[in-house]
This record gives sequence, structure tokens and C-alpha cells, in this order.
Amino acid sequence: MDNKLIITAAITGSVHIPTMSDYLPITPDQIVEDAVKAHEAGAAIAHIHVRNPENGFPSADPELFIEVCSKIKARCDLILLPTTGGGMNQTTEEKLIPIKRLEPEMCSFDPAPFNFGIFQIAGRFKEYKYDWEPEYLELCKNVTFRPTFNDDMIYGKTFMEMDTKPEFEIYELGHVSYVKWLLEENLTKGPVHLQFVFGPMVGWMTPSVKHLVLIYDEAKEVLGEGNFTWSVAAGGRFQIPITTTAMAMGAQNVRVGLEDSVYAGKGIMAKASADQVNMIKRIAKEMSLEPATSEETRQILGLKGLDKVNF
Amino acid sequence: MDNKLIITAAITGSVHIPTMSDYLPITPDQIVEDAVKAHEAGAAIAHIHVRNPENGFPSADPELFIEVCSKIKARCDLILLPTTGGGMNQTTEEKLIPIKRLEPEMCSFDPAPFNFGIFQIAGRFKEYKYDWEPEYLELCKNVTFRPTFNDDMIYGKTFMEMDTKPEFEIYELGHVSYVKWLLEENLTKGPVHLQFVFGPMVGWMTPSVKHLVLIYDEAKEVLGEGNFTWSVAAGGRFQIPITTTAMAMGAQNVRVGLEDSVYAGKGIMAKASADQVNMIKRIAKEMSLEPATSEETRQILGLKGLDKVNF
Amino acid sequence: MDNKLIITAAITGSVHIPTMSDYLPITPDQIVEDAVKAHEAGAAIAHIHVRNPENGFPSADPELFIEVCSKIKARCDLILLPTTGGGMNQTTEEKLIPIKRLEPEMCSFDPAPFNFGIFQIAGRFKEYKYDWEPEYLELCKNVTFRPTFNDDMIYGKTFMEMDTKPEFEIYELGHVSYVKWLLEENLTKGPVHLQFVFGPMVGWMTPSVKHLVLIYDEAKEVLGEGNFTWSVAAGGRFQIPITTTAMAMGAQNVRVGLEDSVYAGKGIMAKASADQVNMIKRIAKEMSLEPATSEETRQILGLKGLDKVNF
Amino acid sequence: MDNKLIITAAITGSVHIPTMSDYLPITPDQIVEDAVKAHEAGAAIAHIHVRNPENGFPSADPELFIEVCSKIKARCDLILLPTTGGGMNQTTEEKLIPIKRLEPEMCSFDPAPFNFGIFQIAGRFKEYKYDWEPEYLELCKNVTFRPTFNDDMIYGKTFMEMDTKPEFEIYELGHVSYVKWLLEENLTKGPVHLQFVFGPMVGWMTPSVKHLVLIYDEAKEVLGEGNFTWSVAAGGRFQIPITTTAMAMGAQNVRVGLEDSVYAGKGIMAKASADQVNMIKRIAKEMSLEPATSEETRQILGLKGLDKVNF
Repeated sequence: MDNKLIITAAITGSVHIPTMSDYLPITPDQIVEDAVKAHEAGAAIAHIHVRNPENGFPSADPELFIEVCSKIKARCDLILLPTTGGGMNQTTEEKLIPIKRLEPEMCSFDPAPFNFGIFQIAGRFKEYKYDWEPEYLELCKNVTFRPTFNDDMIYGKTFMEMDTKPEFEIYELGHVSYVKWLLEENLTKGPVHLQFVFGPMVGWMTPSVKHLVLIYDEAKEVLGEGNFTWSVAAGGRFQIPITTTAMAMGAQNVRVGLEDSVYAGKGIMAKASADQVNMIKRIAKEMSLEPATSEETRQILGLKGLDKVNF
Repeated sequence: MDNKLIITAAITGSVHIPTMSDYLPITPDQIVEDAVKAHEAGAAIAHIHVRNPENGFPSADPELFIEVCSKIKARCDLILLPTTGGGMNQTTEEKLIPIKRLEPEMCSFDPAPFNFGIFQIAGRFKEYKYDWEPEYLELCKNVTFRPTFNDDMIYGKTFMEMDTKPEFEIYELGHVSYVKWLLEENLTKGPVHLQFVFGPMVGWMTPSVKHLVLIYDEAKEVLGEGNFTWSVAAGGRFQIPITTTAMAMGAQNVRVGLEDSVYAGKGIMAKASADQVNMIKRIAKEMSLEPATSEETRQILGLKGLDKVNF
Repeated sequence: MDNKLIITAAITGSVHIPTMSDYLPITPDQIVEDAVKAHEAGAAIAHIHVRNPENGFPSADPELFIEVCSKIKARCDLILLPTTGGGMNQTTEEKLIPIKRLEPEMCSFDPAPFNFGIFQIAGRFKEYKYDWEPEYLELCKNVTFRPTFNDDMIYGKTFMEMDTKPEFEIYELGHVSYVKWLLEENLTKGPVHLQFVFGPMVGWMTPSVKHLVLIYDEAKEVLGEGNFTWSVAAGGRFQIPITTTAMAMGAQNVRVGLEDSVYAGKGIMAKASADQVNMIKRIAKEMSLEPATSEETRQILGLKGLDKVNF
Repeated sequence: MDNKLIITAAITGSVHIPTMSDYLPITPDQIVEDAVKAHEAGAAIAHIHVRNPENGFPSADPELFIEVCSKIKARCDLILLPTTGGGMNQTTEEKLIPIKRLEPEMCSFDPAPFNFGIFQIAGRFKEYKYDWEPEYLELCKNVTFRPTFNDDMIYGKTFMEMDTKPEFEIYELGHVSYVKWLLEENLTKGPVHLQFVFGPMVGWMTPSVKHLVLIYDEAKEVLGEGNFTWSVAAGGRFQIPITTTAMAMGAQNVRVGLEDSVYAGKGIMAKASADQVNMIKRIAKEMSLEPATSEETRQILGLKGLDKVNF
């Protein structure tokens, strides 16, 4: 499977506001449509957030998650990877609702605290589509994404119970040590799957080839080569260069999608995550890589299968 | 001043529990005594935490800070650098009490969130001196040290108002970007002073020469060489090797003290922070470095002077 | 010009033996044809070696260089960058013949010694097209490519006299210091152009994203960002991944061509260097980069122009 | 043996000229005396070069090597590590004379080519003690230290025959691959012993903590942790800071001595290599390390023993 590349499409996320792109999917049906298109383009995994269908506000409503996931499942065999990190100011219990209700094959797992400096982009917009948007960008000034060690233990246990494979979101070098600790505590199973996350925001390492090398090297040193598979997600104009570099480094997985960037090339709005999947697929071809199917992805990552989910 | 090394002594901290060392200073007078001794040994700065004199529990009581600082000031010209990071579960306002009340020359400033994995050492002890100790170690499982961007803006403004020089505590590569942002927002003044902090704990990069190089390189890239001075603090058995490496790298400042390690060599309990100051001073001499006096330190770091403090 | 990528095609080189690929151009006309095709595909620079037309043996015959260069010049405005590093066991004077005779716009300049471990590939072939081939592979066991400091001074002076821009070939981190030294001695002019060279051979760093980052960082530290432009060449299966990473890092230039790899994808023989130019061009497009024309390249690198060459 | 540090003293070398220090040992008896003193101070290994007793010119005369080595052996149990790299412009056979004649426990092995930019220091001196000195400094402009792969195979075989442990001199990241190749070819035995060599000269990486980390990491990646022991030698004012950092990184061995630096602190001439051994020993003590005896060193490095040498 050395020539297979797992492509993840992060369909809508909770960072971008509708003002940023007319193409950001909002309603369940839009999200479903974009996920299916991304799959047709080559994505094996869809990372799922949901939004209030009325105004696009990021939501944690389990009914919306179920609607989206079951509708996608009815149309294709995409691996669905809902978020646990969706909303700001959610309690641990609220964050766990999607995974507990859906029992998905995969789910995101943010083990370490970080701030999210999207307030800096507020100045770019003169008008907003929805009233909540400017406040939302400002809100991140007052919120820390803050899992404690106890939260991590609860997450770990829940993931194990659901037989859901965590995608560990790693933002800093030190965050890898959380994964090592969870392995030692038998709160997760190896080989683990890591996603290195970069964004051009205050509080984060800049998305760069150097930083990608550093964080990958850290994972090798802390966890040992062969004990993890990995992906990378990079925000904005860094999306294609950084995921492409990950391919050159032998990553099993890369993530694109409108959650991370609303562009498909310089100055070109992406009409859907599928546009970016197609870009990655074309680059992958030049590197003698081809998109892994969902079934191949299940083998590579050791997933329980679509018949074991609860939607 | 190229051959001067600023030595900071972190006298007691809030991480170590009295059970770890009979020599951990607890009462104001013990803290004063150890700070003065450290100064006599060569320390130019003392990092000050206070503890409940009855049982050693970490305290944020401004009266204790005042007692300690004014008693030290009466005996020597040490630069006093109280903490803003002392207690778990303090509000931003509570954290700011020492700086607002003392108007010190320097103060610690933690711009970014992190967890503090000291719970792992709980298993080492069979008996505790005080009842609160085991609970305290466990408490860190439920607490995230979590400054938001708004908190940082409040801190920055307060430090500017007090003309107090921040010692920015940097635990991860991405944390440097907070300092750059504060500079851009005119919420701090350059050249800034950074302290790279390492500890052998879950959630942090391991203390290593490699990680020290990486974080220093990050600071050079993000802030520009010449725009910052720096120090390093490393926990436990890494204290001497990592601070020594910092000297080899040209650091202006290194920190030792019982806050970071209760040892003065393998298996040897430090009787006071002065023991470690002496170790560093002897190594520095072999590197043709000598301890900066408090006055030299004031020049190197651009401090307002002991006559401008409020204690 | 930030969205321009200079593509260099290294047409035939002196490392590969005819047995490796039926498509390796040998005669002057084959070399000319492949260079022109590479130009049509998007290459702005052709790196020129010549071979004995009878048997493909690497040659330093100035008549062959003149024939190739003048025939290319008659057909297109490619920038021609002949080698000074062509043959093993040449004297310094012999190596300088092409540049002195051709007065080209650019020329390669290897400032530092290295060995060339191609003998390890000898075992792969059962039969050879030409008798000289197995001996040639073995020959590298007895030969060190060994410019001395005096050689470098002679090269530097000659390049200056010819107004020929050096492409400095950098194989190791320490090699960058030679370029700094030549700048200090006024034996070359800034901004300099560096090419980082990687091959999967004994004696060299393995071609890897990490090593590319390290050597680029070294150049930034030693020469200062903005004081150099850069390219990368990587051998064998690393050609596309490493040059692609260079694009992600902001390289002005990348090199492909049959000199470095006889493949155009896994298991696919390249029929000409143009095949690889096309691969790079397609990847570049996905990164919002487009091939620089020869004229744009002359501006970016500050070249004297095709009217100033002596062929 | 984790708390043992092997100290090597490089007594006189062939780089420094007598003009640089009145204390540079020249005659066999001076070299013997300084080696014995270094041993008494804590050195377990002495790296031996010899010089013409009349004028201090670096020599490869086997009789001088024998005189020095046998006289040292008569007085103490130092491990003697003669050079194979002593003179410029020596043939491979000449370089092998000391090892073949002495059959020592250890010997230096430079597997890869490099230039030696000491000509840059020529300008520092107004007067020279000996006529040959200025020419000698200039000579390095015309000389490349250039072992070929065949030379390495001959060296490897000779070291194996003599049961002499090589100290591989590593100047660049790519040089580690030579050692890997020699291991694969059974021309050396693991665990190998590497010495990372840094000097503030054109053509080399600058001596820095960062470069030490990079080259050590390269060795770990290429050879595998646990498959090598290592030392570091750094020239001039970098001697103490870089060897000290090596201690902090867990090096088994560090090298000091007048071959690398004529100083014992800023502006203080070393009266003998013992002065630097004492400095290292004092630093080591602060790091809870103590000098390994020669016998302990033989165990750590797996040496044949002083009774198996031929002097």
C-alpha cells in the first residue's frame, strides 16, 4: 500500500464564517453533497462538522450530525470522522455527544490546550453575511481550547468503548507526549494516527516545511517510527504546499477541504472541497501515488468498518 | 558585557511539595534567607513565589509577597521577579495582584496555555508531610493553565503601566508568536526577555539540547536576532546540563533554584538554591563567564531600578 | 515574479551510463534535441554536459560543447549552463576549458571536495552497452572530486572575467562557507545562486525533506536571507518529491533531467528530460506557480544575456 | 558506566604552528611529558602526532611515533591513539605507517574528503618562529585531504588486521554514511566510535550547539542509537563550550588538548593539554560525571588492551 495516499476532506469546519466564501456548505444537504463529491474526487475520509442551517453558526447538535452522516452513508462508503472539537465553550460532555451517539469509525481527539487566534482576520471584512460572525471571531480572544489530563482520560476511554479510532490533533512538539502517555495508560491503542495541524495564526507555529519536519521528527523520537501513521492539515494558502510536502515525506494521509482553506489556487475560490481533492490527486499522481479507497484506508488505519457505526 | 552571565534563583516555586525536600523554603523568613544566600553566591535575580507558612501550600497572598520582597530589599539589591503564575485555578485578576501591588522590576508572564503533568510524580512518595500534597498533585489533572488572548492583553497593559519587564515563559515553539503579537500590538516593548522552560513532564517537550536549539532558533526566526535576550529553566536532573548548554549558546541568563530541582548533583539534596548557583558559577568560570551583578543585570535587561518598586 | 519557477533541465550529465536508459542523449544532435524539447516544455535553463558521440563516454571536448551550445542557440533562447565538473581526473585547467571558450551566461561551480559513490549501482547490471561502463563506475572508487581553495580562487576569478554567473553546487552544510568566503574575497558577486544537490549515494546526505530544510537553513544563517537564490537537484526516485518540496519552500529554481533520474514516475522510463519538466510544470500549476521564461530567468538571476556568450 | 566521561587529550596535532604558543610540545620528550600530565589530570586517551624535534614541523616519521608511544607506555597506561591524518600530501601508504608499525589500541580514521582552511589565520602573525610556518599555512590552499573509497577500504582492512579501533572523524552530515557503508562491507565492526570535529575555518560548519545536535541526530538516524559511541573535538574558543554541550547530550567521550586550542580560558594560554583536561574535569563534576580511567575506557569502547600493541 506504499503507493496509496489517504485523502481527507474537511467539509465545512467551525473556523470559517459564511462571509469568507459563498461556497461554504451550511445545511445538512449541502454538507452531504460536498462530502459525496469529495469522495467521488478521491477522498476516503470526510471530517464532519455541522452548522445551524438557518445562519451557518457552528453547531454541536447531534441530530444534525446524524442527519449528515446517515445521508452520506446512504450514498457512498466514505469514512466519517466527526469532530469532538467543534464549538467554543463546550463542556467535555457536550464535546463527546457526537462520538457517543454516532459511534463512528474515526473521530478527532485534541489532547492538549491551545488558543485559536482567528480574531486577527476580523479586520479583513467590511460586511458580514450574518450578525453572529464578527462576535464569533472576537470570541476566540476569550476562549482557550482546554482539555485537561482528566478530559483526555475520559476521551480515551470513550474512544476505546466505541472502538472509534482517534485522529490525534497535534499543534506543538510537546503535544506528542500526550499520545505517548495515553498509550502507556492503555487509554488508546497503537499504532496511533496523528494529524499535524498548522495555521497562519497567532499562537501557533507558522505553517512551514521546517515545522512539519520538526514535528514529524518529534513523533518519530517520542513514539518510534512505525508506531504511528500521520496526516497533515494546513490552513489558508499553505494548504497545498504543506500537504504536498507531507506526500514527499511519506505521509499516509493528507487533509484538504474548506475547513482549512476556501481557495483552490491563488485567488481562486474553491467551489467545494472536491476542488482541493482534485488538486492533491493530480500532484499525487506525479509522485506515483494514488488515492486510497475507503476500503484500503480501513485496512491501513485498522478501522472497525461502516457496519459498526450507529447511524 | 559579553562575559557576564545573569543567574536567576527560583527560590521555592509552587510545583514542588514539601515532602520532596526538607530544604524547600516555606516561611517568608526562609525564603528571604535563601534568596539572600543565592545573591551572595552570585544570583542577580530571585524568582519569588510564596507559601502558606503553616503548611507550605502555594499562596498568592499579597501580604506574604510584600513581606518577602521588602525583607530581601532591606538586605541586598537583588532584582525581585515575582510570579503571575503561582496558583492553580486563580482568575486573571488574582494572578495580577502581586505585580499590581509590588510594581516590581520584573515579573513572569505566561502568554500561552499549557497543562502541568506533575501528577505523574505522585506515585513516588509513600508518605507526605502535609495532607494537601497528594491532592495537589492530582489537582493538575483537572486544571489547565489558560491565559486567553484577552488575558494577555490585560497582562501586557498592566506590565507597561507598572514599567515592569516581563520574563516571557515559553514552553513550545508556537508560544513565541504570542510575544511577536504583543510587540505588534504595543502591549510590550522590545528587546523582550524570554525564558525557555523545560520539564520532564507529560505535555511538554523533554528537556534536551535539541529542543533548546529548536526553541532558540524559533525565537531568532520569529523575533529576529538581537531583538530578545533569553534565559532557560529546566526541571529536575536536566537543570545543570540544560542551563550549561544555554551558556555555550550565548544565553544572557540561566535559572536554577529549588523551584526547578531539589538536587545539587546526582543524589545530593540541595540545601538551598545557592548550592545550584555555586555550581553554575563554577561552570561559568570554566567558560570564561562571570556572574553579572544586579546592577549589570539592570543595564543588560533595561530595568527601571530598585528605587521604583512599591515594597 | 513570486509566482515564477525557474526550471532547469540537466540533459545528460556524466553520472549515468548509457546502459541505464535507452533514452539518454549521447550525440550532440540528441542533446540539442532534448534541450530544445525541454525548453518547449517549460525549462528556462539547460545544464550541458557532452559525451563522446561514438560510445557515450563523458567528454570535456570543447568542440562538442560549442557544437551543442551553438545549435541550441540557433533554435531557442535557452540559458545554457555548461559544467565545470564533467570528467573525473581532470586538472583545474581542463575543467575551465568550457567556460573560457564559451563565456556562457551561467556555469556550475563546485567549491568543495566530495566523493561520488556511484560504484554501488554497478551490481545492478548484468550486461553493459559499452565496455567502458563497468570500469567507469569502479573508477569513482579511486577518484575524489577535489577543488582546493586555490582552485576556487582561480574559478572565481575566471567566472568574474567571463561575467558568467556561478551555480554553486552545495552538497554539505559546511560547503556554504566556501561561498561566503568567495564573497568576502570579492571572487564572486551577490546575490549568489546556490544549488543543493542530493543523491542516494555513499558519502552524501540522503535526499530527504529534512536534509533540504537543514541545508537551506544553513544558507540562510551563513549568507543571510535575501542574499541568495536557490535551486535543488535530487537523484533517482527522489527527484520529484524533493524538487516539489523546494517549491513549497519558495525555491526560485528546481532542476530535473536525465542527468539526475532516468525515470518519469515509478517504473516509467523518461523518454527525455522534457517528461520531467512536464511533471514539475503540472505540480507547479497546482501550487499557483508557472514556469519562468528564459527572459524572466535572466532578470531573476541577473544574467548578462545570450548576446554576450561566445558561441 | 553512565557517570563516566572519557577524556581524550590531543597533545600537539599538526595544525598549530609553534608561533601560536610557546607551550606547544615539539620534541618527543615534551610530547611524552604533556601526555603523562594529561593522564594524571584525568585523560584516558592521548591522541598522538609527532613533530620534527629541530623545528616543530609536523612529521610522519615512525621512529618518532615509536619513541613517544613507548616512553608514555613506560610511565602510565594511557590509551594511545596515533593519527593517520598527520601530514599534508602524504600517500595512503605513508598515512598507514604509524598504525602498521605501532598496532595501537585506537587510531584516527578520516573517511571523507575535506579542505583545511587554516590559511585564514596567517594574517594574525607578524613574526614566525620558524621559516616553514607561513608557507605551511599557505600550503593548505593547495591541498585537499582526500581519501577515496578505495583508500577507506584499505584503511578499514588494516584497522581490522591490527585489531585497532577506529576513531572515525566526522566533519559533515554526509560523512556518517561512509561509516555505515564500511559496516555493511564488514570493513569495520560495530559499535563504532565517532568523533564529530568542528573548527572555525572556511569549508567547515561553524562550531555550534546547533551543528553538534544536527550531526549527532544524523548519526542516530543513519547508524541507529546504541550502535555507536561518540566524542567531539572543537577548535579554538569553541573547545570548552562545545565539549561541555556534548556532556549535556550524553557523549561518552570529549577531546581537548593543544591540537585543538592553545587556550585555557579567554586570553589565557594553556601551559599543557592538562590545563584543559582539568577544566573539563571540573565541569564534568558539576554534571555528576567523573573521568573514566584508561581501564574503564577500554571496557566502554571495547579495546584490545595495552599488552597487544607493538611498541
